[in-house]
Amino acid sequence: MTPEGVDVDANGAMQQSQRWAELGQQLRVDSVRAAAAAGSGHPTSSMSAADLIAVLLDGHLRYDFDDPANPGNDHLIFSKGHASPLLYAAYRAVGAIDVDELLSFRKFGSRLEGHPTPRLPWVDVATGSLGQGLPEGVGVALAGRYLDRLPYRVWVLCGDSELAEGSMWEAFEHAAFTQLDNLTAILDINRLGQTRATRHGWDTGAYAERLRAFGWHTIEIDGHDVEAIDKAYQEAVGTSGRPTAVIARTVKGKGVAEVENREGMHGKPLEDPEGAIRELGGVRDLRVQVLSPPREVPFHFQTTGELELPRFEVGDKVATRKAYGQALEAVGAANGQVVALDGEVSNSTYSEIFAKAHPERYFEMYIAEQQMIAAAVGMQVRGWRPFASTFAAFLTRAFDFIRMAAVSRADLRLSGSHAGVSIGEDGPSQMALEDLAMLRAVHGSVVLHPCDANQAAELVAAMAEQSGISYIRTLRGATPVIYQPGTPMPIGGSQVLRSNDSDRVTIVAAGVTVHEALKAADHLAERGVPARVIDCYSVKPIDTATLRAAADATSRIVTVEDHWPEGGLGDAVLDAFADSRPMPRVVKLAVSGMPGSGKPDELLRAAGIDAEAIADAAQALAEAP
Amino acid sequence: MTPEGVDVDANGAMQQSQRWAELGQQLRVDSVRAAAAAGSGHPTSSMSAADLIAVLLDGHLRYDFDDPANPGNDHLIFSKGHASPLLYAAYRAVGAIDVDELLSFRKFGSRLEGHPTPRLPWVDVATGSLGQGLPEGVGVALAGRYLDRLPYRVWVLCGDSELAEGSMWEAFEHAAFTQLDNLTAILDINRLGQTRATRHGWDTGAYAERLRAFGWHTIEIDGHDVEAIDKAYQEAVGTSGRPTAVIARTVKGKGVAEVENREGMHGKPLEDPEGAIRELGGVRDLRVQVLSPPREVPFHFQTTGELELPRFEVGDKVATRKAYGQALEAVGAANGQVVALDGEVSNSTYSEIFAKAHPERYFEMYIAEQQMIAAAVGMQVRGWRPFASTFAAFLTRAFDFIRMAAVSRADLRLSGSHAGVSIGEDGPSQMALEDLAMLRAVHGSVVLHPCDANQAAELVAAMAEQSGISYIRTLRGATPVIYQPGTPMPIGGSQVLRSNDSDRVTIVAAGVTVHEALKAADHLAERGVPARVIDCYSVKPIDTATLRAAADATSRIVTVEDHWPEGGLGDAVLDAFADSRPMPRVVKLAVSGMPGSGKPDELLRAAGIDAEAIADAAQALAEAP
Repeated sequence: MTPEGVDVDANGAMQQSQRWAELGQQLRVDSVRAAAAAGSGHPTSSMSAADLIAVLLDGHLRYDFDDPANPGNDHLIFSKGHASPLLYAAYRAVGAIDVDELLSFRKFGSRLEGHPTPRLPWVDVATGSLGQGLPEGVGVALAGRYLDRLPYRVWVLCGDSELAEGSMWEAFEHAAFTQLDNLTAILDINRLGQTRATRHGWDTGAYAERLRAFGWHTIEIDGHDVEAIDKAYQEAVGTSGRPTAVIARTVKGKGVAEVENREGMHGKPLEDPEGAIRELGGVRDLRVQVLSPPREVPFHFQTTGELELPRFEVGDKVATRKAYGQALEAVGAANGQVVALDGEVSNSTYSEIFAKAHPERYFEMYIAEQQMIAAAVGMQVRGWRPFASTFAAFLTRAFDFIRMAAVSRADLRLSGSHAGVSIGEDGPSQMALEDLAMLRAVHGSVVLHPCDANQAAELVAAMAEQSGISYIRTLRGATPVIYQPGTPMPIGGSQVLRSNDSDRVTIVAAGVTVHEALKAADHLAERGVPARVIDCYSVKPIDTATLRAAADATSRIVTVEDHWPEGGLGDAVLDAFADSRPMPRVVKLAVSGMPGSGKPDELLRAAGIDAEAIADAAQALAEAP
Repeated sequence: MTPEGVDVDANGAMQQSQRWAELGQQLRVDSVRAAAAAGSGHPTSSMSAADLIAVLLDGHLRYDFDDPANPGNDHLIFSKGHASPLLYAAYRAVGAIDVDELLSFRKFGSRLEGHPTPRLPWVDVATGSLGQGLPEGVGVALAGRYLDRLPYRVWVLCGDSELAEGSMWEAFEHAAFTQLDNLTAILDINRLGQTRATRHGWDTGAYAERLRAFGWHTIEIDGHDVEAIDKAYQEAVGTSGRPTAVIARTVKGKGVAEVENREGMHGKPLEDPEGAIRELGGVRDLRVQVLSPPREVPFHFQTTGELELPRFEVGDKVATRKAYGQALEAVGAANGQVVALDGEVSNSTYSEIFAKAHPERYFEMYIAEQQMIAAAVGMQVRGWRPFASTFAAFLTRAFDFIRMAAVSRADLRLSGSHAGVSIGEDGPSQMALEDLAMLRAVHGSVVLHPCDANQAAELVAAMAEQSGISYIRTLRGATPVIYQPGTPMPIGGSQVLRSNDSDRVTIVAAGVTVHEALKAADHLAERGVPARVIDCYSVKPIDTATLRAAADATSRIVTVEDHWPEGGLGDAVLDAFADSRPMPRVVKLAVSGMPGSGKPDELLRAAGIDAEAIADAAQALAEAP
C-alpha cells in the first residue's frame, strides 16, 4: 500500500531468520525516526521489543489490517503503551500506515498519539497508564473463550516495570484460573525503568518462578534471538489449558551504542538519530504479509428480543440495588450481548439475579475491581455490553481503569451499590461518598442515581442502549416505590414530584434523599412553606431546563445528597445555574463530617440530610430576606 | 480493668495450650455476642481467626494497651477489617474495653464501628476496603526498619478473599524486596468468600507457592492447632532477611454447627446466638496479660530546624514540579520527620532532588501507586511526615487508598505532576484532568495548584505543617515566576493579580491558566474591557471572601482550568457563590473534548482555555446584557 513498500515475500532468497532480523532493525529505525520527528517519545523502550514484534508480525499474528472488525482477527495490545513508536513502526511494516503518517507521531491532529488510542482502528484499548493492557487483554481473551467462542489469540506486550503494578497480578491470577490458553503475555525484560533498574533486573527466573506459581506456562528466552522467539510463540500457541508468558531478556535501546543498556535514556529521542539509523543499517522498506485470520462467526446467545422489565407496585418497599439485578436479568433476556461482571459481592449488588438467569454470561471476578473493569473494557472491544458491579465505594479502586476506559472510547456500564451513609452499620469504609464526583469527572460519562425500583429498572434499560461510560448508583436499603411501572425516565431527565404555583422553595434530591425531601415538603406544607421537589435522578447530564424553570418559579433552591459536598449533585445543580439569569440562591446539604456506624435514620440525621434538616434549611432559605 | 476480668495467669493450673484454646473460644463467644447485639456484622469471619489471634495476644504481641503511642509497641492490623468483632473481643480480653462497650458494636456513637477505625486508639489504620491493611502494614514495617529503627513487629491478619486484590501482591513484592523480617502476615484461609468459595479454597499450598516465589518465608499450619500457631509465630520472629506468612487453614464459623464451613453465612449475625454460645462453652472472662514492649527511643535524623526555601527570580521560567522537588529538599533539611515516596517517576515529579539530598528518607516504591499511598499511610502512623508523588493522573490508581486514608485520619501529603493538557505530546493517558475532582472529594482535604515556583515552594512548606490529606498539583512545563520569593501563600488564600475599580469581569484561574488569564487581561485591556485576575491556588479550601468581593465588584466571573468541567476549580468557585447575594454570572471554561497529542499551546487552544479563548469569553460575558 505504501509507495515504498517492498513485499518481504518478494525477497525469495532472504532466509526467514535473516528476514526477521532485518524487520526488527526496520522497526528500530522507524521507532528512532518517529521519535526524532516528534522530538519526544520512547525509542529505547521500543528498540528492546523490536525483535519480539517482528517475529510476531511475520508468522504468528493473524490479522486483516483492512478489516479491523473481522471477528477472526487476533488482538495485539501494547500494555507498555509508551512503546508506541514500535507499534506504529509495525503498522507501517504491514502497510497500514505510510511513512508520512509515521512521522506525524505526537503532532497535533495526528492519530498517532504519544500513547496508543483507538483513534487508530487497529488499537483495541488505550494504554499508557501501565498495568492495564494485560488485564484488558484478559478481558478480550475471556470474550474469545467464553462469549465469542472463537479461536482468535490475544498477544500482549508487557514491560518489566509494569510488573510492579498489582493489577498485573490480578490479571495473571484470573487468566490462569479461567484457563486462557488463547492469551500470550510477551514480557520485555529490558532491565531498566524510567529512573533506575527494576527490582529484578535481568533475573528472568524471578518472573518465571512467580508466573509458574500463578499457574502460567513460562518460556524464558533471549529476546533478540529470532529463532528462539519463533519457537516460543509456537510453543505458546500449542499450549492448552493455561496462558503462556514469553519472558524475554532484552536490551533497552538495543542496536545503538549511544543508548544501549544505559540508564537515563528513558523517554527521550536519540541525540543523534541519523547516526543511530546508520548504526542500525539504514532505512528499510520491508513489507510484512501478515497471516490472514480464519473466517469466523462469533457465537450468539438465544434471547427474546423483547424487553420485559420488572414491575414494582407503588407503595411497596424495594431496594434499588435489587431492582438493578432484576432489570439486568430482563435486559439480558432480551439482548444476548449483555453480560455481567461482579467483584464477589453479587448478593449485595444483586447481579446474582442475572447470574442465576444467564450463567454463561456472568463473570465472577472475585475481589479484584481493577481486573473487573479491565475485563469489561476487553469484552466491549468485541461488541459485548458489559455491566460491572460492586459496592460504589470500591469502584474507587478502579478509577484509573475507568479514566482510561474513556480514553479507550469504551462503552461500559457500571453499577455501584451501597451509596452513602444510608447503608447504616457497616461504617464509612463501605459508604460511597465520592462516587458521584468520581464518575462525573469521567469524559462523556452518564451518572444516574434512582430513588425507586421502577426508576432503577428504566435506567438499567437505558444504560444498555447508551454508548460511553454510564453509571448507576443504587441504595442498600429498601425505599418506597413512588413511580408507576413504565414511567419514562430518560437519561438527562428529572421528575418533578411536587409543584405548585405558590412554591417558595425547590428541593433537589436524588436517591434516598428524594424520600427525605418528600417528607420535608410535607413538613413545610404544614409550616405554610409550599415547596417544589425535583428528583434529579440523572446527575449527569442534568436536567438544566427543569432546574431553571424551578429557579424561575421559586428563586431559592436546596440541594440534598448522601455524598460529600464536593463534586456531586449540589455541584451539578450549581453548574446548571452558572450563567443563568436570574441566578437562584442555592443551599447545599451534604455529608460534611466523617460518619461512623449507626442506623440509616440516625446517620441521615447526623449528616443533616434527613427530612427534618431539609425542612429547616428550606424554610430558612424561603424566609430569608 | 473490666470488673469481670480474670487474669489468665491466675489460673496457674491451666496448661498453656488449654489456655489458648479457651481464649480462642472466648473470642468466638464475644464475636457472636457483639454481632448479636448489633444485629449485623461478621461473626463467622471472626471465628475462623480466633485461635490465631488468641495465641498472638497471649505470648507474642508486645503492646502496652495503656500507652498506644509507645514507640516500642508492636502493631496489629486487621487487613480483613470485617473481622472487627474478633478485634474488639481481643480488646476486651486484654482489658482495653469492657463488655458494655463490646456490646455497643455498630451502634450510633460507639467507637466500635462496623469496621475498625482509629477512633480506637489501638487501631493504626482504618480497614474494611479489602487489600489495604497489608500494604499499610508494609508501610509501618518500613518505618520500623528504615526510619524508627526499632525492633517492633507488625502483625497483619489477612483474609483469603482479599488475596485476589492486586494491592496485596504489590505489598508481598515490596516487603520481600525491602527484607521486612519485622512483618508477619497471618493468612486466615477459611475457604469461603462472601458469595462462594475462593479461587483456591483450602489449597494453602497454592498460596505458599506464590508467596515463596515472591520471596517470603512461608509456614503452612492448621489454624486451629494452637501449638502449631505458637510454633509458627516463633519461627516468624526468628526468621531474618525476609517477611513471613503464616498460612493457616481455618474453618469459617468454627465451633458452631449452624454456620461452620457453610456457604451463605457471610456477614450476618448468627440466628441462634444463645445456642451458639452454649455450643462454644459459654461466656468466659479470661484476661490476657499481653507482653510489655521494650523501652525504645525512635531514631531521629539530623536536621537544621530552620527552613530555607528555594528562591526563584521573578521573570525566570521554572516548572512548578521542579520547585516542588527543591522545596521538598529544603523542608526535609529543616525537619527530619519529612520523608518522600515516589512511584518510579522521581525524575518527572522531581522528588529526586529530595532523594539525592536525603537518601535515607527516600522510598522508591516502583510503579505501584497503591502500595506507595499505603506505605505513606503506614509511615504517618509512626509520626513521620510522608510526601508521596507521581503523575497526578496516576494518583487515580490509588483513589480507594486515599479515600480510606481519610477514614484513617491520616496526615498525608500528595504531589501530582503533569497536570492537564498542558503537558503536551504524551497524550491523554498521562494528563491529569480529574485529579482536582478526586482530591476535592476526599474528606477534610486541602487541594493546592500553584502557578509559579515561589508559590509552589511556599505551599510545600505549608503542607509539611498541615494535618489531614493535602495535595499539590504541579505542572510539567516551565512557567514564568510572577511572585517574589517569600510571598505568603496561606492555605485557603488567593492572589489578586489584576484589580481596578473599573473592572468589568473577573477571571479566576489556577496553575497554567493563571498565565493565560494574565495574557487575556492584557488583550481585554486593549479591547477596553478591564478585567480582574485572581490566582485561586487554594482550590480547597477556596478563598470565598476574595471571590465574593470580586463578584460584588464585577458581578461577572470567568473560571478557567486545565481539567474536565466537573468537580474542579469552576465547581469550587460556584460553590463559593452558592447562597451569596447577589449571585454573579459565572462562565466556566474547562477541557470538554478528549485531547490528543500536540504542543502545549496547541492543546490549550484546542481545549478553549488559552488566553484568546479566555479573552473572548470574558469580553462576551462583560458585554452581555
